[in-house]
Amino acid sequence: MTSLGDKGSVQTQTKVLSQDSWTQVSCPCCVSKQVEPLVLIQLSDSVQPVTKRWLISLIETSKRHGGAALLAHPGEDECGDVVVVSAPRCTFLKATEDLGLCKKYHNEDMVAFSYHDRDNFSNVDDMQEFLTLAERQYIVKNELDSLQAQKKQRIPGIPEAPGVLEAWENICQKLVRAGVIKDIFPLHDQQRLNDLGRRWYSKKQIWGQPLDAIQSYFGSTVAFYFSFLDFYTWALVPPAFLGLVLTFLLPGGGGVVKEQAGEGAMEEDDDGPSVSGHMVQAVFSMLWSTLFIELWKRRSSSLSHRWGTLNLAERFAGPRPGFHGTLGLNPETGRLEPLFPEWQRQLRVGLVSLPLVGLLMGLVVLGMTCFYHGEALVQGFHQDSGSLFSGVLLYMPSMAHIVYTNMLGNVYHAVAMQLTEWENHREESSFQNHHTTKVLLYVTIYVCLLSIFAQRLASMLIGNQLVNQCTEVVVPFIVDRFLSAPHKKEQEDDLEMDKLRAQRSLPPYPGLFAEYIELLLQFGYLSLFSCVYPLTAVLLLLNNITEIRGDAYKICKLFRKPFSAPVSNMGVWQTAFEVLGFVSVMSNCWLLLLSPRVQEFCLEGGISGKNIILVAILVEHVLILVKMVLAFMIPDEPDWVRIKREQIEFNSMQALGQQVRMI
Amino acid sequence: MTSLGDKGSVQTQTKVLSQDSWTQVSCPCCVSKQVEPLVLIQLSDSVQPVTKRWLISLIETSKRHGGAALLAHPGEDECGDVVVVSAPRCTFLKATEDLGLCKKYHNEDMVAFSYHDRDNFSNVDDMQEFLTLAERQYIVKNELDSLQAQKKQRIPGIPEAPGVLEAWENICQKLVRAGVIKDIFPLHDQQRLNDLGRRWYSKKQIWGQPLDAIQSYFGSTVAFYFSFLDFYTWALVPPAFLGLVLTFLLPGGGGVVKEQAGEGAMEEDDDGPSVSGHMVQAVFSMLWSTLFIELWKRRSSSLSHRWGTLNLAERFAGPRPGFHGTLGLNPETGRLEPLFPEWQRQLRVGLVSLPLVGLLMGLVVLGMTCFYHGEALVQGFHQDSGSLFSGVLLYMPSMAHIVYTNMLGNVYHAVAMQLTEWENHREESSFQNHHTTKVLLYVTIYVCLLSIFAQRLASMLIGNQLVNQCTEVVVPFIVDRFLSAPHKKEQEDDLEMDKLRAQRSLPPYPGLFAEYIELLLQFGYLSLFSCVYPLTAVLLLLNNITEIRGDAYKICKLFRKPFSAPVSNMGVWQTAFEVLGFVSVMSNCWLLLLSPRVQEFCLEGGISGKNIILVAILVEHVLILVKMVLAFMIPDEPDWVRIKREQIEFNSMQALGQQVRMI
Repeated sequence: MTSLGDKGSVQTQTKVLSQDSWTQVSCPCCVSKQVEPLVLIQLSDSVQPVTKRWLISLIETSKRHGGAALLAHPGEDECGDVVVVSAPRCTFLKATEDLGLCKKYHNEDMVAFSYHDRDNFSNVDDMQEFLTLAERQYIVKNELDSLQAQKKQRIPGIPEAPGVLEAWENICQKLVRAGVIKDIFPLHDQQRLNDLGRRWYSKKQIWGQPLDAIQSYFGSTVAFYFSFLDFYTWALVPPAFLGLVLTFLLPGGGGVVKEQAGEGAMEEDDDGPSVSGHMVQAVFSMLWSTLFIELWKRRSSSLSHRWGTLNLAERFAGPRPGFHGTLGLNPETGRLEPLFPEWQRQLRVGLVSLPLVGLLMGLVVLGMTCFYHGEALVQGFHQDSGSLFSGVLLYMPSMAHIVYTNMLGNVYHAVAMQLTEWENHREESSFQNHHTTKVLLYVTIYVCLLSIFAQRLASMLIGNQLVNQCTEVVVPFIVDRFLSAPHKKEQEDDLEMDKLRAQRSLPPYPGLFAEYIELLLQFGYLSLFSCVYPLTAVLLLLNNITEIRGDAYKICKLFRKPFSAPVSNMGVWQTAFEVLGFVSVMSNCWLLLLSPRVQEFCLEGGISGKNIILVAILVEHVLILVKMVLAFMIPDEPDWVRIKREQIEFNSMQALGQQVRMI
Repeated sequence: MTSLGDKGSVQTQTKVLSQDSWTQVSCPCCVSKQVEPLVLIQLSDSVQPVTKRWLISLIETSKRHGGAALLAHPGEDECGDVVVVSAPRCTFLKATEDLGLCKKYHNEDMVAFSYHDRDNFSNVDDMQEFLTLAERQYIVKNELDSLQAQKKQRIPGIPEAPGVLEAWENICQKLVRAGVIKDIFPLHDQQRLNDLGRRWYSKKQIWGQPLDAIQSYFGSTVAFYFSFLDFYTWALVPPAFLGLVLTFLLPGGGGVVKEQAGEGAMEEDDDGPSVSGHMVQAVFSMLWSTLFIELWKRRSSSLSHRWGTLNLAERFAGPRPGFHGTLGLNPETGRLEPLFPEWQRQLRVGLVSLPLVGLLMGLVVLGMTCFYHGEALVQGFHQDSGSLFSGVLLYMPSMAHIVYTNMLGNVYHAVAMQLTEWENHREESSFQNHHTTKVLLYVTIYVCLLSIFAQRLASMLIGNQLVNQCTEVVVPFIVDRFLSAPHKKEQEDDLEMDKLRAQRSLPPYPGLFAEYIELLLQFGYLSLFSCVYPLTAVLLLLNNITEIRGDAYKICKLFRKPFSAPVSNMGVWQTAFEVLGFVSVMSNCWLLLLSPRVQEFCLEGGISGKNIILVAILVEHVLILVKMVLAFMIPDEPDWVRIKREQIEFNSMQALGQQVRMI
């Protein structure tokens, strides 16, 4: 379903705001006829013109004087509540180097961009070709985020107390806290968006996704999600096929086994294939999940090379906005910035975050246990008395549990965010990984408990997915198409500015967490239970083909455009899929060998329960070994990517050797 | 037992051969009054003077003209059967850059050496200070090894057939095959060696090892072994202490447990602590082995930084001598060299080496099984008949097994070497790792089988170690001190040249494989069985304190000096210790929970055998999880090393950015 070939070279006529209202550029190379509006800063209604003027001047001031070296446009007039921001060429180029993005060299190689060597890169004169829209918007946001007060000063137009900036305080965060800035978001480019939509989720387009165009418009975070979804959907074909074969072509596939097993096994043989079918499914599912993850890693690294994010230099860039510490010289880069010792962060993670997360997990387990004990109690009481009161009481444990779980969930999410903030990660990716891991742990324990207590997890999960998809896509689609449509029509004649501002009305994009969790649950369910319900893969395949279109429509039409940092892989999600792969091997062994049917079959064959378990242990350890050997044997990146990466390393080593250091 | 502080700045008066016999240097910066003899090439007795002259001229020719750019000395006269080799300053400096060694910069930082920037490094004018002896000798060997024929040519003085060099053929390998070169080995520097010995294994020196001096004299491969031995010996103190406490202070430590367990447990309680003592030992041993490995990694990386091998560039250097392939441009470095595709190597490893190794392993298992069946058979027969013949027959299975195992062992070692050669690894370290892994697999399976079949593994291993140490050290010591001593005395008055040549009579150093295996067995035994014999650690501690001195004496006095490549860690041995750590967790669980005493104890307590196993499984999985979390939480390198490493990365990225590429 991939069509990487057609590059997203849509000719867009950039819509421009009145040209003369943009702040002027000082650098001659940055002068251009048209300035593209990239990011919108939404101010509060009550903002003072003096504050807005101060902010605009800060945005346009050069970096040497503590500004962001961007271009600002005040909207319709000086008093409006928006500032539209763009950036001049030099700012873009320098930021590209700082981010460590790779760009096309004149010899068509992808090479880490260097401002010093800029003239040898392709398209370096046309920012709209050189950087993708997502990169341009991320750079603008990044520059805004890194605005720091040069010295202690007052923000004009804001009363005493909240309006005082300490030296080195982050200005954007301060303005958000002070209520001046309500929101900062990247602007949609309607024409590009329509083009993208046509190639992505229209009726003609069924088999592929324009991944390059997605990367260009939405950035690599989003593009990696859709590439993974794509890869995963294709990967579902073999298990789906096997499932179909086992279910329909070999309905009595385990015939020989059954005859030997005799009556005991026959009785239960009404809802799935036989013991040997189970075995085939379990071993296949183990191999499949390993291959899937390993091949995805290869795919991921070649995508990363293609998108120029193989060599990101996040570690050497400035810290994330929320980071704080004592001001000092960064020992690696020699730049003045807040420092926070690594061991202190480790201590915070190990001695505070871990125990607190464990405690909350314990509360989840406690709640679940209480719920099931309560239910058993109430049911016993109902069977004894059978009155209306006891009938009503039957619902009480569920109700209490739902309320408890919801409350706990909210508390957990708040605590997870606070803890991760407090752990004070320097890099955005590290912050995201730690936060995601915490939430993921919660979801995992919750799902595990559900699957232990509620036996009907299987059908529940599938049903859940279908219902989810309806609520996720169908409802917003109807709202968007039929309820908001007349409203939209009216706006067609409005001013350019109003169109930009209209994007405010869309809700902010909720992020990819829910989407990834959905895939993770699918994958877990598939590799954990596919030996019990062999048709799972078929259902998931069908589900995902619609899921791709649904998710695409959602991100294009129903939400505000999200910012997206350049990333080189799926980060913690890849680890999550890998861990799940391991857990699934263990679980498959135990599910299979401890299932009543196999137990009966073995007992009839004269094998003792103790021996079954010993066999299961042996099988588990061997399978895990096989999985590890497989994972080790398949290189994580294709040869050509490795060679490119090593070329970069070799070149930089050579460059270091050539250069007399300036220490 | 470490004393890293005192730098090995022994003032050595380099013994020189007659100065004017050395080949002359062309480069003015390389002229020096004294040339240090570093490496000796032992030629065959029948070598023609013309061949020797050709070899010497090849050694001294500049690299541009296909030579090695080294210095050669013909020994006493033109007809002798040795060539002594040294190197001029420029060759040393360029090789240092190519190897990627880090050296002290003028600001005391360790920085990857750059020839271009050489004047900013400390001691760059004095090669004896700038490079260690081991590095100088390795560089000379490396240059000799990389001699290649520039075009098809004849070796003078050798008859037609074996004397024809193909273009790009490796010259040293060819000369060895043609019988011209019998051996190449590095020369001892007696004065430095005596100094080193005094600080290493004399009676005064008990608590520390002069690790820096070892690294300087013998190179980092050897130094890493002795550092590890040192670290490991110190690490034995806590388990030894625990063992002493459990054995002597708490002889009835499991009193409560025993009373509950009643008679059944009491009966067997004669050779070790009780159940709860076992538990403590098992959990402690798991934690200890994890901490040990993780802390060693940190120690290892700081040693590597100290010795300037953190940044080795083996991948970008030329291929190892045995490597062959089609000549082409290396895509990473752009140099002309033999190329061999990675996937083909992977195929060879996966489809040929792996099955063959598996087959041979199968034969080991088969042999062991046959042996035990045979023994049972013969014993049965002996008990039935009781004749003298059957008494003799009793020894037959053991004899047959010993012969079979020895033959198989020899076949396996030959096959392992051949296979690894045939896998055609480009880098020496990769070759070593693959070879070591193969041999290690063999040893592992052998030891595993022994431990399964022979119940008395425990005492056997310890006994083995003591016997080993005797044969390893005591016997050669006696030979060296008393039998060869008079012979040595005579030589005192001999010529300088004869002293060098006398080193030929020593046997070549057998390598560190046996030493590492010994430690691995110790570690395995300790972490696998310490819960059964708590005093193991004490015995091992005592053993290792003498082992350090013994190994030191051995390498200094009893063998020829080995070449030692600069390495940044223990390579595959570190992995082996890590894997063993994991296996030990599993084994500890099973040994403990399936031991007859615990089984009886549990059965008396009313726990069924099936439940015991389920508990064991749970405990195993939890312990492995704890181990993985621990390993993940402890960073593999100390913060200061990480910062230094990242500084280097940042600098080379910066340098790459500064430089306009010359593509």
